Amino acid sequence: MNFIYEPNPQKIEEKSFQLIREQTDLTSFDKEQTQVVMRIVHSVGLPEVATLVRFSPNACQKGLEAIKNNAAILCDVEMVKQGITKRLISKEPYCFLNHPDVPALAKKIKNTRTMAAMDYWTPYLKDSIVVIGNAPTALFGLLQKIKEGADKPALIIGMPVGFVGAAESKDALWQHFEELGLECITLLGKQGGSAVSSATVNALLRCHAGMYF
Amino acid sequence: MNFIYEPNPQKIEEKSFQLIREQTDLTSFDKEQTQVVMRIVHSVGLPEVATLVRFSPNACQKGLEAIKNNAAILCDVEMVKQGITKRLISKEPYCFLNHPDVPALAKKIKNTRTMAAMDYWTPYLKDSIVVIGNAPTALFGLLQKIKEGADKPALIIGMPVGFVGAAESKDALWQHFEELGLECITLLGKQGGSAVSSATVNALLRCHAGMYF
Repeated sequence: MNFIYEPNPQKIEEKSFQLIREQTDLTSFDKEQTQVVMRIVHSVGLPEVATLVRFSPNACQKGLEAIKNNAAILCDVEMVKQGITKRLISKEPYCFLNHPDVPALAKKIKNTRTMAAMDYWTPYLKDSIVVIGNAPTALFGLLQKIKEGADKPALIIGMPVGFVGAAESKDALWQHFEELGLECITLLGKQGGSAVSSATVNALLRCHAGMYF
Repeated sequence: MNFIYEPNPQKIEEKSFQLIREQTDLTSFDKEQTQVVMRIVHSVGLPEVATLVRFSPNACQKGLEAIKNNAAILCDVEMVKQGITKRLISKEPYCFLNHPDVPALAKKIKNTRTMAAMDYWTPYLKDSIVVIGNAPTALFGLLQKIKEGADKPALIIGMPVGFVGAAESKDALWQHFEELGLECITLLGKQGGSAVSSATVNALLRCHAGMYF
């Protein structure tokens, strides 16, 4: 046998999104939300995750405004940053996890490296887009910081993955965004990760650029 | 309310793997396979994916030997490379997707950038560990290259994600590894991605370092 496949990247992407539309229940989402949900489904290969995506009322609108304003994009881990489509942004996203001072700071504050790295976010937080794809501690920590008066991002994309704290951190975000005055997009439950998180950013970047599927 | 969480990374990881053992059917896997499957489950937050993981008979053994021999690790996309735990490797993994000549080469061969980038793998293929987490075209293309006589990797971790070609490319790998003389680890179906792929590499790296959960 020969290993034959479709080599045209445009055709692959068009066909992908056609299949995603066919296989995913998108009835409860507006135009921009639909683009985000389709890209999340695309990134995990699982139409069922659509039922777990949650948007605060103005999440997409605030995200698009932030993109228009060339907002800082703050990522908890390098994989999230890596997954963001570079040709659609004019400014490199920030991730401080590999900052040389972070391991020592993590030991000092007796917390995760991700929490330590978040200390470097402070000057960039206001009106930023925060993307958390890995660490529940980062999401919990951010909510606590904001509760204590830290500047507010324009949008929090909170999608940590895993068995300890991930679902709980996203529940906390989803239950308290309103009282904290936040806008958010999240994926409830244990699923999540860097790919879904950067897919969410990429969907908004594509909407901003007028590239709808 | 306060946003409280477990801040100790060792405790988070131990608790995670304890919960994964409780929630995942691991009965059909040997010691090393179990470590791989648990890390895959950890990376997607979904115990059910365990049923979709497939190992060729000597996949883990050959992967561990390759690690011992300081083999080249070839990644289809930067996110896979980014996800590999750097402190457990002595040599930077390879990814040629952002090589400056790749876009022009992709146009010339009328194929995806990933396929074009794969042309740079040739001198490193022999006894390498190939990790494909994104592009079905790369996995199909690699199988075709090997069929036509290219050097064989020690292990193929083939886990592209998506709706067009991903499941088919992994079926092709799983159905033809034996006649092509290959060892492989794959995740059947549409699910996959950079996180599961690098998690698989990381599980083997940890086994090599004696770090079992």
